[in-house]
Amino acid sequence: MDDLFFEAGPEFARQLDAEDELAFCREAFVLAEPDLIYLDGNSLGRLPRRAAERLRTVVDREWGRDLIRGWNAGWYEAPSRLGDKIARVVGAQPGEVVVSDSTSVNLFKLVMAGLAMQPGRDRIVSDVLNFPSDLYVLQGCIRLSGDRHHLYLIPSADGITVEPQALGEAIDERTALVTLSHVAFKSGFLYDAAVVTERAHRSGALVLWDLSHSVGAVPIHLDDWQVDLAVGCTYKYLNGGPGAPAFLYVRRDLQGSLVSPIWGWYGQQSPFDFELDYKPTEGAGRFMAGTPPILSLLAMDSALDLTLEAGIERIRLKSVRLTSYLVYLVDTVLWPLGFALGSPRDAVRRGSHVSIRHPEGYRINRALIEEMQVLPDFREPDNIRLGLAPLYTSFVEVWEAVARIRQVVVEGRYLNYSAKRLPVT
Amino acid sequence: MDDLFFEAGPEFARQLDAEDELAFCREAFVLAEPDLIYLDGNSLGRLPRRAAERLRTVVDREWGRDLIRGWNAGWYEAPSRLGDKIARVVGAQPGEVVVSDSTSVNLFKLVMAGLAMQPGRDRIVSDVLNFPSDLYVLQGCIRLSGDRHHLYLIPSADGITVEPQALGEAIDERTALVTLSHVAFKSGFLYDAAVVTERAHRSGALVLWDLSHSVGAVPIHLDDWQVDLAVGCTYKYLNGGPGAPAFLYVRRDLQGSLVSPIWGWYGQQSPFDFELDYKPTEGAGRFMAGTPPILSLLAMDSALDLTLEAGIERIRLKSVRLTSYLVYLVDTVLWPLGFALGSPRDAVRRGSHVSIRHPEGYRINRALIEEMQVLPDFREPDNIRLGLAPLYTSFVEVWEAVARIRQVVVEGRYLNYSAKRLPVT
Repeated sequence: MDDLFFEAGPEFARQLDAEDELAFCREAFVLAEPDLIYLDGNSLGRLPRRAAERLRTVVDREWGRDLIRGWNAGWYEAPSRLGDKIARVVGAQPGEVVVSDSTSVNLFKLVMAGLAMQPGRDRIVSDVLNFPSDLYVLQGCIRLSGDRHHLYLIPSADGITVEPQALGEAIDERTALVTLSHVAFKSGFLYDAAVVTERAHRSGALVLWDLSHSVGAVPIHLDDWQVDLAVGCTYKYLNGGPGAPAFLYVRRDLQGSLVSPIWGWYGQQSPFDFELDYKPTEGAGRFMAGTPPILSLLAMDSALDLTLEAGIERIRLKSVRLTSYLVYLVDTVLWPLGFALGSPRDAVRRGSHVSIRHPEGYRINRALIEEMQVLPDFREPDNIRLGLAPLYTSFVEVWEAVARIRQVVVEGRYLNYSAKRLPVT
Repeated sequence: MDDLFFEAGPEFARQLDAEDELAFCREAFVLAEPDLIYLDGNSLGRLPRRAAERLRTVVDREWGRDLIRGWNAGWYEAPSRLGDKIARVVGAQPGEVVVSDSTSVNLFKLVMAGLAMQPGRDRIVSDVLNFPSDLYVLQGCIRLSGDRHHLYLIPSADGITVEPQALGEAIDERTALVTLSHVAFKSGFLYDAAVVTERAHRSGALVLWDLSHSVGAVPIHLDDWQVDLAVGCTYKYLNGGPGAPAFLYVRRDLQGSLVSPIWGWYGQQSPFDFELDYKPTEGAGRFMAGTPPILSLLAMDSALDLTLEAGIERIRLKSVRLTSYLVYLVDTVLWPLGFALGSPRDAVRRGSHVSIRHPEGYRINRALIEEMQVLPDFREPDNIRLGLAPLYTSFVEVWEAVARIRQVVVEGRYLNYSAKRLPVT
């Protein structure tokens, strides 16, 4: 990853595209507005053509014609079958991953189950870079368990990364659970999950990774890293569609001793016997509860195939090239205009989005969306997040996006917009 | 409801259809196999034509073209907006209902919140007719709370109904929560929810109704009945599509004092401020947690309009006619063949499905599905459930279904099938 040299100018971007082994993947997506530079695939992935086709089949043929028979023709097994596909993306075995609920609900289930396994330990370790919703879930778990635990948030000196030393100090013999986002939602900071997991295990703590911002963009080896628990999102780099159900991972040897707090028919051993007493099924499936949303579930099926066909190593290679190229352009084109990098400079410690900071970030972001055909997103207080999705983001788009950002600032176009915050996502 | 007189013969069924004020609704649904008699709308409602159109728009235009901008163009508010529509179906006010998660997860959240409000009370009352998944959730809640509560299941003398007396005996000063299915999934028994709620309140217990098998088929007046909490399913009589997200109701004056066990960004006051501390939003929305599955969510939008246009009183009127007509045919045509009614005989105590019992019920059900173009479902040990969906089930279909059931038995067609259970739903 060190032998990356870049040049300015669109010709060089075109050359990078010409050398891109994953260029073919872009055609698999619907590109409804060809001029739009979409840099929010880290928040909602584009629509795969095959997903659109598949959904027509699911709606018209499976729901419309097969009706209830759809449950016996693939719907019922879909959460496990798709979980097994995701297992291949995150380095897990069949039966260790299921698609279920939302990331927050999955996090809740696994945190509650994990804490129950750690009596006598009262600390939950996370960090200030974690997605706030994850911290809310942890706060809720602590309240629900009668305030017997406290949440220790590892600080970040620069607001971008967490120092290994701070991590080492946080995890001790009181620590029941370490739960972190593998890639931070704002800065894109990428943890060395193997090292952190090993460090936590040395203190007897369980480790739960939120893979939402890394899955489909960064190689993940849950089994090899001996990770205990994980959750993640399918609508970002996995392109599962808006609000597509999330996934959860429970390492095989832990499955028998972990108990979900939410018992429902989908986690039941033989649900169609309609027994009045709950007996959890084998595998990670015991963490399922109610009926999954089939339309949103099956949309991700062919999307996952795209990721598997591209291969996570090739995806990572392109991701590093994309983000490194962007960092180069930030340094050379945008830095003189008052921009600062809000992401790690070292590609090894970076996911697939890059944040750039500017005092006028909010207004610049508005101008990009409203008149420049660029779609990034904004995160307080001054971050413009540029998500580079290796399956469909091209190097020319990166070049062009930076050119348009420059134009917004140089021409003062951002001055047309109020700094008063609109509701955003 | 007492002045119903029926005659045998298909002419009479045609006459009932001719007098049906809701006959026009049938055309709003996709009828892919016109000869198929679909009697499982109590499990998965048919596909509304408008839902199919809407989904094409959601997929191709909103996800495919608008991409992340979809969140600001209606997705974010959809759970509340659709909740307000459902509120009109269940007799609630805007802000008391939201669409969220699955029925099981919603039940979990409201049970945990309700129990926390009732310190010193250790009994949860339900009944043996309740959907097993609901009982699993209750068992899980009890375990999670450290086995401080016990579950008291009201028995059923006939396996079909629950006597008011048994209910009165179950609810006492120890009772924290009474939670029941408004309509029983197997027998179709319909509780007098107003009376039960009043009885429970007299003992100081909270009441939580599972409306899954009644909503969209039976008039519900949650506010008038002073119900505390409710959950329900949208893919049965509401036709929201396979696994469509569920809803939950929290009476307005309770909202401030109830705390969800699962805290997530969707229940947060100002989620886009990305504050690290959780502050629940106003209204029932504080019981939302993670990102909702947008495709499965929006499918129910136009489906709900159909129910609102038909009007729940007209729906109930037709439902009672349909089920009463079916009971009449069971008595006159099927009783001589060994069938018994597995549902309440009194229409006032019956939802919109009728169970018929037969020692060979399993094999008869198989034959109906495999060779007779009739789709009921089977529930152990001997129930064939016939769901009559007032929006699209016709009286001729009821007549014809009974004629085909008769044919299966008279011609011994069921003998071609094994009694060994296949996986079913």
